Amino acid sequence: MKALWFDGKELKLREMPRPGPGKNEALIRVLYAGICNTDLEILQGYMKFTGVLGHEFVGLVESGPKKWLGKRVVGEINLGCGKCGYCLRGLTRHCPNRTVFGISGKNGSFAEYITLPVNNLHEVPDSVSDLEAVLVEPLAAALRILDQVEIKRGQKVFVLGDGKLGQLIVRALRTRTKNLVLIGKHHHKLALAAKLGIRTVLAHKLRAVCPEDKAEVVIEATGNPKGIEQAIELCRPQGKIVLKSTFHELPGINLSRIVVDEIKLVGSRCGDFQAALKMLKEKRISLMGLVSKVYELDNFSAAFKKAASPASLKVVVKCRK
Amino acid sequence: MKALWFDGKELKLREMPRPGPGKNEALIRVLYAGICNTDLEILQGYMKFTGVLGHEFVGLVESGPKKWLGKRVVGEINLGCGKCGYCLRGLTRHCPNRTVFGISGKNGSFAEYITLPVNNLHEVPDSVSDLEAVLVEPLAAALRILDQVEIKRGQKVFVLGDGKLGQLIVRALRTRTKNLVLIGKHHHKLALAAKLGIRTVLAHKLRAVCPEDKAEVVIEATGNPKGIEQAIELCRPQGKIVLKSTFHELPGINLSRIVVDEIKLVGSRCGDFQAALKMLKEKRISLMGLVSKVYELDNFSAAFKKAASPASLKVVVKCRK
Repeated sequence: MKALWFDGKELKLREMPRPGPGKNEALIRVLYAGICNTDLEILQGYMKFTGVLGHEFVGLVESGPKKWLGKRVVGEINLGCGKCGYCLRGLTRHCPNRTVFGISGKNGSFAEYITLPVNNLHEVPDSVSDLEAVLVEPLAAALRILDQVEIKRGQKVFVLGDGKLGQLIVRALRTRTKNLVLIGKHHHKLALAAKLGIRTVLAHKLRAVCPEDKAEVVIEATGNPKGIEQAIELCRPQGKIVLKSTFHELPGINLSRIVVDEIKLVGSRCGDFQAALKMLKEKRISLMGLVSKVYELDNFSAAFKKAASPASLKVVVKCRK
Repeated sequence: MKALWFDGKELKLREMPRPGPGKNEALIRVLYAGICNTDLEILQGYMKFTGVLGHEFVGLVESGPKKWLGKRVVGEINLGCGKCGYCLRGLTRHCPNRTVFGISGKNGSFAEYITLPVNNLHEVPDSVSDLEAVLVEPLAAALRILDQVEIKRGQKVFVLGDGKLGQLIVRALRTRTKNLVLIGKHHHKLALAAKLGIRTVLAHKLRAVCPEDKAEVVIEATGNPKGIEQAIELCRPQGKIVLKSTFHELPGINLSRIVVDEIKLVGSRCGDFQAALKMLKEKRISLMGLVSKVYELDNFSAAFKKAASPASLKVVVKCRK
């Protein structure tokens, strides 16, 4: 089969053996796989990963336990050891021995075939399209914020970053509060959110926010190490900043300001796939316009170039022939 | 009167006019004032403060509203404007227009006389000594952690930093959990906590903590920009790190690790003076051994040298003649 292999320096399309599913695993034919900012960071050295890249996908189960055969599925990315204290307490996502699909120690989704434990799989309802399903992993990550931070109806929230993740976050949060402001750098991306009735502001217009206009909750989803600075500026004393971006840099942070203003920084990663699928199934969220373009696997190099362009939103790779 | 003035470069003992209390303010003769790490940071440029340094004190009210005359008092350091939304919501400590005693826009306690609004004052019970009272401000700051982070009985907590603040923090937290470990660099400081039955570990022996031995709550009170790194190492996924240190540097922080491990960073500053005084009055906490030395005001330069020595704990300046 064909797969996109990152050798630590370069991303190459390689011919490699189709993986064999282990016990309680499924062999999945990948239909589509999405390019995430984390993938771009990995290409810059984040996680020191080598292997098949990619962790967002929708696919069809070709072999494995009988009840899964033929199902259209999406898959959670953390593979816990199943034996340690974390796994036994249900914290598989934080298992210290885990591998992470396409990110750490486990080949990912830019391939014709993948394997995953069936415990990681979720069936996609018929009413959810392939291109919606490929966004379930990041949508679940966006919804994760609602598990971690209480957002009261009408409470003011700033979302920093009008990219793929920021777009999903405003869509997820507006189910809880309408007092949302998306702050970004790109007219056309802000316009996409504005169409849904979300207030938007160009980042460079927001330099001086008066104390009463700061927000209780600020979501940092810029994917940029400098995003945290602006998040601190926009957060009220005793407010919360949710951190969603991962990158390979170690930004210098004004920790004293966090102490003095008694701000809480909340790291936030993977979320509940079932909640994301339910939201899509019930059409409570629209992902319209979030996929910038779909490329064939053979054309991966154009796909990654497109994904790295600041003008792009989600770039998707079609992995089936 | 004599006062220790910081002109942005140098700390000098100056003769200056005794301050006149405004309406609802008291004129206080300072008995003792403590040197805090924040003072040492201010001397390095933190807060860009110029004026009379110092924010920890015990003193006697000499003039002001009648009911306060002759009282022995300690004082809260934040002076809100009383008019803004923050003040009206009771968040005086976070008033954007506030001055901060000895830290920002308001002369502090290394002086023979000071003024403070009586709303900032707390009477010291007779059973609390002057040298205990001078530690009320940092003790309240230590107790603040218990307002912000739920610490369950028996829950494991690491406290990083065996200095003045770390020492107060372990004393405050052990009223809630006995499963406390103080991590520091100084044998004699750790020994002081060990005498109270607190477990202690030398920092350099803690390099490899296995996942199950990490703590749900880690308190960073090293006063060192590098402390946060070790705090992250010692914190469980989904755990909390309380930040107490302020400094003028902007340390580079592995934010991605905070995201991936879904750690919460909690900035923590000033606390409840009444709670601290009550604890001292009821002898529920012992501050024995925490004052390294007392210096006369004239001898301030030796006092600050001593305070800056890694071997010292609290250095106190006697301000009355």
